[in-house]
Amino acid sequence: MAQLIADRRDIDFVLHEQLNVEALSEHKRFNEFGKKTVDLIVSEARNLAIKEILPLQKPSDTGCEFNNGTVKVPEGFHRVMKAYNEGEWLAMTDDPEWGGQGMPKTVAMAANEYFYGACNSFMLYNLLTHGASKLVETFGTPEQKNLHLKNMLSGKWAGTMLLTESDAGSDLAGITTMAKDNGDGTYSLEGNKIFISGGEQDLTENIVHPVLARLEDSPAGIKGISLFLVTKYRLNPDGTPGEFNNVVCTGIEEKMGLHGSATCSLELGGKGQCIGTLLGEKNKGMAAMFLMMNEARQMVGLQGQANASAAYMYALDYARQRIQSKSLTAPAGTPPVAIINHPDVKRQLLMMKSWVEGMRSLVYYTGLCHDRLAIAADDSERQFYSTLLEVLTPIIKGYITDRAFDVCNHGVQIYGGYGFIEEFPVSQLLRDCRIFMLYEGTNGIQAMDLVGRKLGMHKGEPFIHFLGLIEKTITASREVKGLESLADSMQRFFTNYAEVAHEISARAASGKVMEVFAFSHPFLEVSGDLTVAWMLLWRASVAAPKLGKKKKDDAFYQGQIQTARFFINNILPVTEGRLNTIKQGDAVAAVMEDAQFGGK
Amino acid sequence: MAQLIADRRDIDFVLHEQLNVEALSEHKRFNEFGKKTVDLIVSEARNLAIKEILPLQKPSDTGCEFNNGTVKVPEGFHRVMKAYNEGEWLAMTDDPEWGGQGMPKTVAMAANEYFYGACNSFMLYNLLTHGASKLVETFGTPEQKNLHLKNMLSGKWAGTMLLTESDAGSDLAGITTMAKDNGDGTYSLEGNKIFISGGEQDLTENIVHPVLARLEDSPAGIKGISLFLVTKYRLNPDGTPGEFNNVVCTGIEEKMGLHGSATCSLELGGKGQCIGTLLGEKNKGMAAMFLMMNEARQMVGLQGQANASAAYMYALDYARQRIQSKSLTAPAGTPPVAIINHPDVKRQLLMMKSWVEGMRSLVYYTGLCHDRLAIAADDSERQFYSTLLEVLTPIIKGYITDRAFDVCNHGVQIYGGYGFIEEFPVSQLLRDCRIFMLYEGTNGIQAMDLVGRKLGMHKGEPFIHFLGLIEKTITASREVKGLESLADSMQRFFTNYAEVAHEISARAASGKVMEVFAFSHPFLEVSGDLTVAWMLLWRASVAAPKLGKKKKDDAFYQGQIQTARFFINNILPVTEGRLNTIKQGDAVAAVMEDAQFGGK
Repeated sequence: MAQLIADRRDIDFVLHEQLNVEALSEHKRFNEFGKKTVDLIVSEARNLAIKEILPLQKPSDTGCEFNNGTVKVPEGFHRVMKAYNEGEWLAMTDDPEWGGQGMPKTVAMAANEYFYGACNSFMLYNLLTHGASKLVETFGTPEQKNLHLKNMLSGKWAGTMLLTESDAGSDLAGITTMAKDNGDGTYSLEGNKIFISGGEQDLTENIVHPVLARLEDSPAGIKGISLFLVTKYRLNPDGTPGEFNNVVCTGIEEKMGLHGSATCSLELGGKGQCIGTLLGEKNKGMAAMFLMMNEARQMVGLQGQANASAAYMYALDYARQRIQSKSLTAPAGTPPVAIINHPDVKRQLLMMKSWVEGMRSLVYYTGLCHDRLAIAADDSERQFYSTLLEVLTPIIKGYITDRAFDVCNHGVQIYGGYGFIEEFPVSQLLRDCRIFMLYEGTNGIQAMDLVGRKLGMHKGEPFIHFLGLIEKTITASREVKGLESLADSMQRFFTNYAEVAHEISARAASGKVMEVFAFSHPFLEVSGDLTVAWMLLWRASVAAPKLGKKKKDDAFYQGQIQTARFFINNILPVTEGRLNTIKQGDAVAAVMEDAQFGGK
Repeated sequence: MAQLIADRRDIDFVLHEQLNVEALSEHKRFNEFGKKTVDLIVSEARNLAIKEILPLQKPSDTGCEFNNGTVKVPEGFHRVMKAYNEGEWLAMTDDPEWGGQGMPKTVAMAANEYFYGACNSFMLYNLLTHGASKLVETFGTPEQKNLHLKNMLSGKWAGTMLLTESDAGSDLAGITTMAKDNGDGTYSLEGNKIFISGGEQDLTENIVHPVLARLEDSPAGIKGISLFLVTKYRLNPDGTPGEFNNVVCTGIEEKMGLHGSATCSLELGGKGQCIGTLLGEKNKGMAAMFLMMNEARQMVGLQGQANASAAYMYALDYARQRIQSKSLTAPAGTPPVAIINHPDVKRQLLMMKSWVEGMRSLVYYTGLCHDRLAIAADDSERQFYSTLLEVLTPIIKGYITDRAFDVCNHGVQIYGGYGFIEEFPVSQLLRDCRIFMLYEGTNGIQAMDLVGRKLGMHKGEPFIHFLGLIEKTITASREVKGLESLADSMQRFFTNYAEVAHEISARAASGKVMEVFAFSHPFLEVSGDLTVAWMLLWRASVAAPKLGKKKKDDAFYQGQIQTARFFINNILPVTEGRLNTIKQGDAVAAVMEDAQFGGK
């Protein structure tokens, strides 16, 4: 039977055969999470995802209802959220002190792939709640933690993130929401925020809003922004929700997709006092936000990857079912075959497979880096993983979400005319997927982050570590029978890439700012292709030695090698062309003048 | 002020400076269409498009209403259709004998770019009517022509195309709709058709359906398909619409976009007799359809190009208005600037511009080939243009619609978070645009047409002519001051491309069918990139000598050179990488086995 959302065999392969996740259980912190437990967790997540969350996807597309300040989420969300919370899935990786399960992030990624791939708009409420809880955990006073954390991590209360204003999006320096010190440890907030996912809803009994705002005596720009904690209902002395706190939802957006998630405009303190407390230090709001941003961006990468995986499963199954045209090599009059037999359909499925699986490995690997960081033996190991994560983050967010949209687009194409029809699932996946390229920093911002900050951070050391890991895989795979020539091709590409990365650093060092950023997004693309190729070659080097051992596994392992071969021989040459573009460096985008674009 | 839909200066440039359309007026057939007349036509089309058709675009997104067999098109469509018909825009290029204006197709392309770019779903009704009228004109008996043509070309009646059935899409061999000979020159049709654009509507007083169906004694497969003419209402002896003809609309599709166009399921003869006449010869329905298909596919290319142009105009204007972040090279604390000043935004605008303008030239050039064909002096010239058009068709349909979707996607990205919000126009353009890659033959089918038929047709002569035209432009541009190095880069790419085209032909000749088609779509992509580069270099070679002549034109002409430079130096190297992939020819998609894809 066809699999839904994600290929379980492949998930198990990544967890156990590629990343060896059970090795984590040798460490005290994760010693409950041996192979059996991990498999059980993934099975339970898969069950919940397929049986409960996936049926929400289609109805979620009709959207939320806004009525006089209230928001009704799609039918079914309440019931399934209850099941999700009963399973304690929100706090999989969190500290048991606050009700968490202390699970490795690597494993949580697998569970989350099923959840997000089933219904991204449903899960977005949870993503935001979890992110907000991390802010409270990291920057909160003991009192703030006691008041909020357990309620949030149990899913009783939700969380959001109030950053964007209509004139402050990519550049938060323009934030105008004000916070007035009440002199009693509280602040009165006033301002308008937009694009607030889950800013209002009828799912939880309270909502916790971390808010970026300015104190009256703060300097201009991003150095004058502080972080506040505001709840929809003020808290009674016993911590229960009390009086309405004048966080007023003034409307929800009509969007291209992800309709199940209410994207709210919120007015704070316009109709009465809106009271909050300071979270962390005054004027350090942006730093706090950035600290959490990396993890949020990694989760957006997962959202894209999960969406792409769901599209691949649907398209693959459709290509196996849909009968159309005889085989190209069969004589005229031969009966038509399933379209998976046609080379151009296979080519598209191979593109989907290579990205979905390469990106899966990358996302789970990110989880593993977090886990290794959590159990690091010393500062140097901690530094290694934390900075590696910083290098990977723009690739995970920016590259994965770009490619996830492409993968969903191929999914639509494989369905033919039916792909455009809402009765079939792929159109919604494409529409839902589009937002991931935009929120948590557009992919243009991600590209600038990679080139402008991550490439040169700590004198380039983390980036060199990143390259070192890739080279290690290439070297190892050259010793694997059957992979020699793939390893060689990959090595040639890698060397070329490393030169270009060096060249860009040199350009940046010589002050050619515009010229460097004219190629920031192409550089993100080639970096992502390199990372996916790395993951696929790594997979192939695990798979190749197992060929011929168990008959039932042979097709899967052959598939791993073919996928790496496709990506390295059919995709990387295109990437190499993009690399050449960057190398030649004719930065037209740096010099093109406004008037030359026409249109006036 | 910002321009809407398309850049008039650029349209004029293509018509007059690049293609020299007024030269056509030297020929008797087009002697009324001198420069002044052409400019007037474009101005009038632009007026109608901006003032009347464009305001339909947003309301069209709410879709058509289906109720008990009837379809109500969006409000406003009726009124604007009346204005469109009063202007006789449907029959711009048609024979005056049937009410046409006899205009050059090149000029009509410009008018149509405005119309389609304003509201593609509104125009789709007209596209289908025009296409159906061409079938009647080409294959109809004098009586069929007298009964239908003037009514269709005046817009009084509409036309459609009844091809697809649920199991016969890309492969029409599976068509099961039957036609029974009534012995009186009429036929009774029975069957079900799907995906019929405008299959039912309340816009016109009758609808003319060309229908692909089988006669009872016909052979199986595509050789047993005939074409019939069926009207929604049977015709009275005086030619006026009479009794209902039992073409029953059983529903309309819920789609991703293009909601203003009713996509109907039609049941013929299920609830009573549905009578039609044979159009053309028995069992020659597919040949007739294919003859018309090229032109329909060219119009789909125009649909994509027009949509992309509209997205570019919006994104360009937004990038000039939206203030966000200081210039990258300005000191901290400097006020934010319009985002068009940021290099990554410029890069995206350059991608949009180069594709929109290159594709505009290509679409109009197609019109010019039709015009040259119509006034050809001899058979050899006729053969030249008609086969050139055949070579260009899969590129225009397959490549342009792929890139149009990308262009609209960049449009969404430039709007940032607002791009995902339906209040802004770019989301709808992206959703509308998606269907063009699917209908009139998916782009996979177009790629197979290019590689499997067009590349080798007439012993490769038309393809060699196509290459010859490009080489001529390269040679000429090498003589233009300032373009020498662009011409050289283009020449290198061109030589490489020609080798690969030759190599593919050789592979095909040696029977490596699967291996060839594993690269059919990549070959379509590189062929399209080559064609766009050709058009942009041609533009630059027209623009460069005019620099410094008139101050007010300088930015425009500089823009032409910069755009060619961007495409040749920043995009073609990537294409070269794709070319290398094809050249190396590791056809993984030919050998990948079903089970290796996983998912079971």
